[in-house]
Amino acid sequence: MSLVVQKYGGSSVADGEKIMNVARRIAKTSENGNQVVVVVSAMGDTTDDLIKLAYNVCENPSSRELDVLLSTGEIVSSTLLAMALKSLGAKSISLTGAQAGIRTDNSYSKARITNIDPRRVVRELEKGNIVIVAGFQGMNEEMDTTTLGRGGSDTTAVALAVSLEADKCEIYTDVAGVYTADPRIVSQAKKLDEIGYEEMLEMSTYGANVMHPRAVELGQIYNIPILVASSFLESPGTLIHGGIPMEGRNRVTGIAQDLNVAKVTIVGVPDKPGIAATIFERLANAGISVDTIVQNASIENITDLTFTIAKSDLAPATEIVKPIASEIGARDCIFDPTVGKVSIIGTGIQTSPGYAARMFTTLSQEGINIMLISTSEIRITCIIKEDKVKDAVRALHRAFELEQA
Amino acid sequence: MSLVVQKYGGSSVADGEKIMNVARRIAKTSENGNQVVVVVSAMGDTTDDLIKLAYNVCENPSSRELDVLLSTGEIVSSTLLAMALKSLGAKSISLTGAQAGIRTDNSYSKARITNIDPRRVVRELEKGNIVIVAGFQGMNEEMDTTTLGRGGSDTTAVALAVSLEADKCEIYTDVAGVYTADPRIVSQAKKLDEIGYEEMLEMSTYGANVMHPRAVELGQIYNIPILVASSFLESPGTLIHGGIPMEGRNRVTGIAQDLNVAKVTIVGVPDKPGIAATIFERLANAGISVDTIVQNASIENITDLTFTIAKSDLAPATEIVKPIASEIGARDCIFDPTVGKVSIIGTGIQTSPGYAARMFTTLSQEGINIMLISTSEIRITCIIKEDKVKDAVRALHRAFELEQA
Repeated sequence: MSLVVQKYGGSSVADGEKIMNVARRIAKTSENGNQVVVVVSAMGDTTDDLIKLAYNVCENPSSRELDVLLSTGEIVSSTLLAMALKSLGAKSISLTGAQAGIRTDNSYSKARITNIDPRRVVRELEKGNIVIVAGFQGMNEEMDTTTLGRGGSDTTAVALAVSLEADKCEIYTDVAGVYTADPRIVSQAKKLDEIGYEEMLEMSTYGANVMHPRAVELGQIYNIPILVASSFLESPGTLIHGGIPMEGRNRVTGIAQDLNVAKVTIVGVPDKPGIAATIFERLANAGISVDTIVQNASIENITDLTFTIAKSDLAPATEIVKPIASEIGARDCIFDPTVGKVSIIGTGIQTSPGYAARMFTTLSQEGINIMLISTSEIRITCIIKEDKVKDAVRALHRAFELEQA
Repeated sequence: MSLVVQKYGGSSVADGEKIMNVARRIAKTSENGNQVVVVVSAMGDTTDDLIKLAYNVCENPSSRELDVLLSTGEIVSSTLLAMALKSLGAKSISLTGAQAGIRTDNSYSKARITNIDPRRVVRELEKGNIVIVAGFQGMNEEMDTTTLGRGGSDTTAVALAVSLEADKCEIYTDVAGVYTADPRIVSQAKKLDEIGYEEMLEMSTYGANVMHPRAVELGQIYNIPILVASSFLESPGTLIHGGIPMEGRNRVTGIAQDLNVAKVTIVGVPDKPGIAATIFERLANAGISVDTIVQNASIENITDLTFTIAKSDLAPATEIVKPIASEIGARDCIFDPTVGKVSIIGTGIQTSPGYAARMFTTLSQEGINIMLISTSEIRITCIIKEDKVKDAVRALHRAFELEQA
């Protein structure tokens, strides 16, 4: 008998009919002789609705209270799914994150899982129950509810699969799997049958919204194969696993894009040690992640420092960067929210010559100016004007012949 | 410093504005130098909405899952109230029933509180927090969520007041207090400044919907004074306490009515020991409470057995009573859902002559036929036709001069 962990996202359980549809899929998996643990997100827009309720009574609600409030969304969907399974004659029980043994640190709204005590889940499986776990939530040492932040339910599923030593971890969502590019931009984009953890991690981090990078990373660390597939279709999806050799087919796997990008340039920075450190430390303290960083060649001990952040962090970043810039005697600060990223991802990209050149040539032929470049072992990212991102994705998909993937 | 437990019902927290209004009242109580514990119900129609969601996916949801689902309603309102207090600058924290230490038996949907471990509540009070507790819910030995059924949040409040040895327990609702009769029926009804536990218990049990009898009973057992008042007004409400002498003013305190009544008559029952026991045991096993029971004088070892039940229990009661009636050779069964109760309540009623006589005369003068009578030390109840109940209440209110209360 196999143990399968399945995760269903909010759009898959948005109403009663969709919950029944998901229940039928789960019941089928169970009838096929599997033990099944299901992680479920909040129904449709529930989380947004709860956030609106909160901001209606408080401009600045405490993150502890917000976490307790938001956690109810997943509790509601988990009980409804257990009831739907009952109406199909399947034996099941819902558990909150706390009951499922998910222990976290105290970082409300973005808690990290510290460990999982799977005893209750195991006991319920042994009783013959399908176990429905409310995703996105856990409990800290104070026995208070925490939420796991972005990608929380995916992370719950992968972490439970690790803890239970599950045979399979399946993430069901509203797309059919991982594509060579966003199918809404590139109509010829192909669904991939499989992808390596590293590539998937770069795809996720650089804008493919199929799965959150932290869940992919967890799968990679514990070498749990993760299937990403549609909860609405019967198609086989994409298997994320570690069995793909690093030097594999040695080609571009996919194109990712990200429009939630803003560029910050501090002009005329005195080239002294410690200045960059000051800036990035203060941004980090404010919870603002800095991405691509470029410091232009120094002329007469004066330099320009450029970096990118999430567009949604632009307002707090401006408040932090401006005073520092005047403090250190910089000439100017430029904040540009009209940029985006396009990335090519594939094993062996950095060690095989020609990929970077072909990427830059392609963009140049499209008349797209490259502002910044960043690379990893398996990725090359260009920062370009926001309004050129879609054209860039289409041109690169053609140039790397991904429609034949 | 006094410790005050306050309870706010669902209509008092039905939307953001009402939550802010309640928060202002709580903050004021705190600013006046009190430690405050607040028990809150689910917002407005939340519970009904959740029940609809449940029956949308399952005709017969398990009561365990239903309890987990319904408990989220009070968790939502408790966090919102904590946030509203924060926006007023008051320090507060929300706790679920489980976190507040409310332990119950396993009777899902109608759990009884077995004990309260108040340590977490005390710790939060000592930190200077106003403690908001989600009402209507607790946790059983399996660490599963249970709900307390009807009157659950009132019971949570009184039980917490007992456990914390609170100085005051205040139940805020959408009425100004306890009246001599339902003000929607009798426009001259007077609000009572105080009432004894016993009288309040009879008023609650016999139809006054201000407070659930189980919460009144708990207050009586532990001698906790309970103030019932409006959350919308600044009026002083009604104090329920034990300090009123049994022989007090020796008069009728109030008139109660109940329309949720059905009458069952088993005609021609052989007058043998054990037959009534069989019937009432089977009804009790099905969770059906039997009220007034009358067995008419036996003629030739044949008797008529009449009793009343809640109108809402009529269908299951019919299924139980019919087979028993034919089993024991009764001639017929009559089920009458068109009846109601009217009661006069007051200390010393049974020991002072004249009250019963005046009640029966008054009803007779109104042309109202009395079908059954039941009495307690402080109450006389008549079962009459449903459509005569309002007239009866008005006539009795006049006859006992309650408009001068």
